[in-house]
Amino acid sequence: MSERISVVENIMGANDRLAEDNRARLDAAGVFAVNLMASPGAGKTSLIEQTLPRLADQLRLAVIDGDIATSIDADRAAAAGAVASVQINTGGQCHLDAVMLQQGLGQLDLSQIDLLLVENVGNLVCPADFRLGTHKSVLVASVPEGDDKPYKYPGMYRGVDALVINKTDLLPYIPFKMDYFRRGVEVLNAGLVTFPLSCKTGEGVDAWVAWIVENVQTFKR
Amino acid sequence: MSERISVVENIMGANDRLAEDNRARLDAAGVFAVNLMASPGAGKTSLIEQTLPRLADQLRLAVIDGDIATSIDADRAAAAGAVASVQINTGGQCHLDAVMLQQGLGQLDLSQIDLLLVENVGNLVCPADFRLGTHKSVLVASVPEGDDKPYKYPGMYRGVDALVINKTDLLPYIPFKMDYFRRGVEVLNAGLVTFPLSCKTGEGVDAWVAWIVENVQTFKR
Repeated sequence: MSERISVVENIMGANDRLAEDNRARLDAAGVFAVNLMASPGAGKTSLIEQTLPRLADQLRLAVIDGDIATSIDADRAAAAGAVASVQINTGGQCHLDAVMLQQGLGQLDLSQIDLLLVENVGNLVCPADFRLGTHKSVLVASVPEGDDKPYKYPGMYRGVDALVINKTDLLPYIPFKMDYFRRGVEVLNAGLVTFPLSCKTGEGVDAWVAWIVENVQTFKR
Repeated sequence: MSERISVVENIMGANDRLAEDNRARLDAAGVFAVNLMASPGAGKTSLIEQTLPRLADQLRLAVIDGDIATSIDADRAAAAGAVASVQINTGGQCHLDAVMLQQGLGQLDLSQIDLLLVENVGNLVCPADFRLGTHKSVLVASVPEGDDKPYKYPGMYRGVDALVINKTDLLPYIPFKMDYFRRGVEVLNAGLVTFPLSCKTGEGVDAWVAWIVENVQTFKR
């Protein structure tokens, strides 16, 4: 088993070093990058579709989409107005890693981009363990997943810089105790900035977009 | 890299051998076992809660719950009438494996059980790669996850023996094209037996329970 452990440590160490390279490359180009993580179907792509048109007149936005298979998400991002969208198929791997982001960055003209949204593979476990080199990590939760998810996936909730709670339009139809959910989040990540919103109705999306803009402005200063 | 590959192959090979041991142990004890997989929040635990009372007068049912953290699910299964429920906390690992099932089986008196439901970690990727030794694998999909999931998580949809489509009560409130979803499933797993149902209203649950009973009866013969 010691052989296995040392191999795993080497893989993680190599990933972290590459994540630092990615960060340096993004910084040098003046590109602010966000790692979007979520369960399958929580609404990462829908959030990108809502975000893009609201920012199109002030920021040049690109998207890198990680998926096990298909280019459905990158196609949706391109249709929503991204200046560039790159699909990375992980070939079965359950998360993006720094190598994949490096490859994705190589397909973009970073001088033409202000903000890069990286859509990770839909998974509440593994993506939390692999740094990419992005500036912020955001978790997209959703009401139908249930109010117990912070308790059951603590690693993911502990590691993020902001939390979107999507599909609030479904609250009348689903037993979801917002207080219970928020208490779980607070224990793991005190004071975490949170955006309840609905990508279907658009309600609450402006506050999320304002947070993104504020972060990009702080970064560019 | 060749060292890494051989280590991974050894791990997978060891898992498969242990899965065979688990199967032999279940067979010898006359316990029919089902591996339930799903995204976080698709409704595995709710399905178990709906299933248990419908079978309580004809089968002795036990549950093994795999989670990153907490014993919320095993507690719910016990409350719903399982003759025994065991919680396995994977300590961060994103799937159950045959070692964990072996440990779970060791905590049960198999002579007192007819049917064992194994609730895997909520994840549409990694659990598909690790055989446990159960007799059937079932995927619990849910309407709010979206109709594109078979296309994006083909490995999971390809490997299962039955598919539950939960939360059909939300169909009026969500853009979910059942035809598009089913076409994706059919390409990956032709003729897959499918149970659209709602754990909230109970609609469709009886057909799923009948399938379970039929499988247990065939196994016991």
